[in-house]
Amino acid sequence: MALSIFDLECLHVALQEARKSYEEGGVPVGSAMSYQEHLIASGHNQRVQQDDPIAHGEMDCIRRAGRRPHYNGVTLYTTLSPCMMCSGTIVQFGIKRVVIGENRNFEGNIDFLRRNGVEVELVNDPECIELMDHFIREQPHLWNEDIAVTE
Amino acid sequence: MALSIFDLECLHVALQEARKSYEEGGVPVGSAMSYQEHLIASGHNQRVQQDDPIAHGEMDCIRRAGRRPHYNGVTLYTTLSPCMMCSGTIVQFGIKRVVIGENRNFEGNIDFLRRNGVEVELVNDPECIELMDHFIREQPHLWNEDIAVTE
Repeated sequence: MALSIFDLECLHVALQEARKSYEEGGVPVGSAMSYQEHLIASGHNQRVQQDDPIAHGEMDCIRRAGRRPHYNGVTLYTTLSPCMMCSGTIVQFGIKRVVIGENRNFEGNIDFLRRNGVEVELVNDPECIELMDHFIREQPHLWNEDIAVTE
Repeated sequence: MALSIFDLECLHVALQEARKSYEEGGVPVGSAMSYQEHLIASGHNQRVQQDDPIAHGEMDCIRRAGRRPHYNGVTLYTTLSPCMMCSGTIVQFGIKRVVIGENRNFEGNIDFLRRNGVEVELVNDPECIELMDHFIREQPHLWNEDIAVTE
């Protein structure tokens, strides 16, 4: 299934979440979730805001979506290519479709997702790229902490 | 590095966390974390207690350990073999050693962990096995929800 206008709207919600996180002094990665073409949740990285190392944007969004019996029919949107924590979560929970804002600033695990049957749409949106690039230059230590890269 | 008495003490802390979760009506998986032979955190599954689908035992423990610049020198203890979410998290955060209570009730992703350079010690402790086996028989729907198995 190719990208739809609805997909781009949901990705824009994720970008707004990322910008909100940036304004809060946090890591600017945002996420949104749709179910059968309805937006049902959004969230953003909470490492700084909630002192929570596991709350990457995707994880916060999945948490905010609440308990679900399954994730059939769900698409997850994220401004940045998912790390191994978030990719493992997508596979474990059976989320079958992921729309990714960009993978220029962080490669992530797109091959892993596809090998595990996840349909991945990569947009490489200029606004997503610019926000993350700006943040990484501004706060390299915080970014390295978020992905646990030893400096 | 083989299992030490300290490792077994930490696994016992994880088992106590799992029992606490069971008593709270939750999924009985517990976890603990050590750093250079000191216990630094423990936690348990919070799906029911906090309505939090991402708070598996290992994730709750990592969250309770707080923000860290890196995970060198950390060992993670868990009563049950880690699912793909928790395994992905272990790899992303660079946790290099994991002690697993049992994998009889849930196989988990031990091969994935080892392929990614994680040292895995599998105990198959009778008390860990019995607690999880009892729970799965008692609450199969809740267990399936926790690992997102469609019924």
